[in-house]
Amino acid sequence: MVTKFYNARILALDGITPLTEGELIVSGGRIVALGKGAAFSGTIDREIDCHGNLIMPGFKNAHTHSGMTFLRSLADDLPLQRWLTEQVFPKEAQLTPDDVYVLTKLAIMEYLTSGITMMFDMYFARESIAQAAIDTGFRAALVGCANDYGGTAQETADEYAKFSSYHPLISYRLGFHAEYTTSEPLLRDLSQMVQQLKQPFYTHLNETAAEVESCVAHSGMRTIEYLDSLGLFNYGGGGYHCVHVSPREMDIMQSRGMTAVTCPGSNTKLASGVAPVYEYLKRGIPVAIGTDGPASNNCLDFFREMFLATGLQKLAHGAEAVDAMDVLDMACKNGAYACGFDDCDCLAVGKQADLILIDLNQPNMQPLNNIEKNIVYSGSKQNVSLVMIAGKILYDRGEFFIGDDPQRIYAEANRIIRGMK
Amino acid sequence: MVTKFYNARILALDGITPLTEGELIVSGGRIVALGKGAAFSGTIDREIDCHGNLIMPGFKNAHTHSGMTFLRSLADDLPLQRWLTEQVFPKEAQLTPDDVYVLTKLAIMEYLTSGITMMFDMYFARESIAQAAIDTGFRAALVGCANDYGGTAQETADEYAKFSSYHPLISYRLGFHAEYTTSEPLLRDLSQMVQQLKQPFYTHLNETAAEVESCVAHSGMRTIEYLDSLGLFNYGGGGYHCVHVSPREMDIMQSRGMTAVTCPGSNTKLASGVAPVYEYLKRGIPVAIGTDGPASNNCLDFFREMFLATGLQKLAHGAEAVDAMDVLDMACKNGAYACGFDDCDCLAVGKQADLILIDLNQPNMQPLNNIEKNIVYSGSKQNVSLVMIAGKILYDRGEFFIGDDPQRIYAEANRIIRGMK
Repeated sequence: MVTKFYNARILALDGITPLTEGELIVSGGRIVALGKGAAFSGTIDREIDCHGNLIMPGFKNAHTHSGMTFLRSLADDLPLQRWLTEQVFPKEAQLTPDDVYVLTKLAIMEYLTSGITMMFDMYFARESIAQAAIDTGFRAALVGCANDYGGTAQETADEYAKFSSYHPLISYRLGFHAEYTTSEPLLRDLSQMVQQLKQPFYTHLNETAAEVESCVAHSGMRTIEYLDSLGLFNYGGGGYHCVHVSPREMDIMQSRGMTAVTCPGSNTKLASGVAPVYEYLKRGIPVAIGTDGPASNNCLDFFREMFLATGLQKLAHGAEAVDAMDVLDMACKNGAYACGFDDCDCLAVGKQADLILIDLNQPNMQPLNNIEKNIVYSGSKQNVSLVMIAGKILYDRGEFFIGDDPQRIYAEANRIIRGMK
Repeated sequence: MVTKFYNARILALDGITPLTEGELIVSGGRIVALGKGAAFSGTIDREIDCHGNLIMPGFKNAHTHSGMTFLRSLADDLPLQRWLTEQVFPKEAQLTPDDVYVLTKLAIMEYLTSGITMMFDMYFARESIAQAAIDTGFRAALVGCANDYGGTAQETADEYAKFSSYHPLISYRLGFHAEYTTSEPLLRDLSQMVQQLKQPFYTHLNETAAEVESCVAHSGMRTIEYLDSLGLFNYGGGGYHCVHVSPREMDIMQSRGMTAVTCPGSNTKLASGVAPVYEYLKRGIPVAIGTDGPASNNCLDFFREMFLATGLQKLAHGAEAVDAMDVLDMACKNGAYACGFDDCDCLAVGKQADLILIDLNQPNMQPLNNIEKNIVYSGSKQNVSLVMIAGKILYDRGEFFIGDDPQRIYAEANRIIRGMK
């Protein structure tokens, strides 16, 4: 299938090309030409008139627990520890792999409505997650979540072997749940695995002040110092949340080449704090953006996350802090790199056709004084008119093309939560 | 025109009726029946199947400068004072009343896309604002913005007389721009007018720390103390922003029955600070929500504002602070009261049919664990499928019924800003 988009504005975000106008041609799931007068020698199967609207790379959701859709709005307005122990854990224990499959599909639908084309997903029943992504056509990096309640280093290594060559849409990253759920013997096993596989390592990191304090209490070190002392970040990787991070820990992140995945919506709603994104950027620590799971956030909306990723920094550091282009780089590129997807970061010849069409013919995008700023500061899900992943259209003006019936997915999600004790 | 909505969920927000199912019938611009088996003796002209989706009151935007749409994304990432003096004032000076008319229409379109049915608008060329509202069918309260650069107490009083009986969709509130743009002789004139007309009084209030400090420097009092000492709030009223407010000033707000209009999106983007909404609610000070103008925010999206209205309080006071029902009351009722519209606050027999239809058949609304929380925590503009004001449908599944062509309005807005020096 060869698709040609024409009458388009194109925001390549390749670090070279400014916002331009022209055509973009996709063949074999990849971009084969773009720009003014972009040409292709073969047959064009499908031509899409963009009516002057904007093609840009899809957003990369660098931290989520997609399967948690069933818990949305069930237990809000609680702090993180009570929310986890009183609501989340007892209900999660009742989930089946089939449940995770359909609940992940529900999350993927929501990702598509806000222009997200990739997820970095930490949840259990990873075969179900991978299958939901493959069946819908969505790009996904899975990450291990071993902890004291389940999972070993060997299982993590086996999963790495299995999912690394599972499907072109699937990637796998080593990781574990969090320091506060994992005792040192397991951490040492995981570190041994890291040294053998020489791979980056990801985990929940310094989300709440309480979790850092408890790490200091038992180890004498803050969380990133402690995990690094065990060798877990010897091959890089990164942390989800990274809210309460000391300058010394930032030094470690810098020297290990770690990525900070900020989840401002979740950290705001759970009152966990504001991540030092401004400092990360000043130090050159790559920042990616994640929605976190739909039970905590409760929203899988990258426009909300992008506004918060800059807005909360402005509140702390002044109106000049973290401009729109910084946010677009975080949203489109850095999550892809963190997941090991190097070819869906931007729009360029040879890259994956993971792209979205932004409707500029909406009042919140007018006038067209600065389209990049419009996207970050006034953009909304309503502006996402088309989502393409690996050359396949999954979402087009409110309709889903994911090989399943949205009404069936909604009904299943309601059935799952209604059936729980 | 008699309209019957059926197969609906109904969130009346009248303080009595819980979320219910049934019908809602509108005649003569007002609600004549609602609930299960709601009946009407006359002819029904139009029946709308809601497919189980939710009817609720429209959101009330309690502070904005609609005409500023032309400045959107033109000068972001600047602090408030530089943004005002270097960008806003020089360009505003070039606007004509015809420009304000079309730029206000552009803002009204954006309001409709996020379910806003009323604006409390402070801008110049108020006849143009009123005309834009009347011609589109939108509800608007105008407020005077006299200051040292234009406007007198007499002109304000004349406007009050004129606009108070201008059109059923139009209301008028006494007010002035801000303490920091207005010297004491004019404030004394305005106070005399307030005593004569015995009306509530509104103004920008304690938006930035700098503006409060400058008031202390010249008057020895903080802004609310100073303005109250002049008698300006003798008949109540309120302030826009109310970010930097002392306990003593809150005492004044309480004793005068003043409303705090919080503008969290604008205050975040301009780094002005976080309003003490949590304290206002604890004291029983009514809080309404405003987007502020599209040049500062830059977004006229009530879903963003609602999330920030609770989220920023949770960051400061813990995850339990300001729950979803509090936010819905702020968003739907309090702005209406502030503007003097007592009959569009909630859904009840005899009230204005100012209502919106929320599409629950979207992934961000599923499962239906708690619909009110879904609206505040995961809702988006994409969920707004229909907007009715005074019984007239102005927006229906992406289409505008505002008596003008959206493309013409976009073109005009671009022409206006392109033509400026």
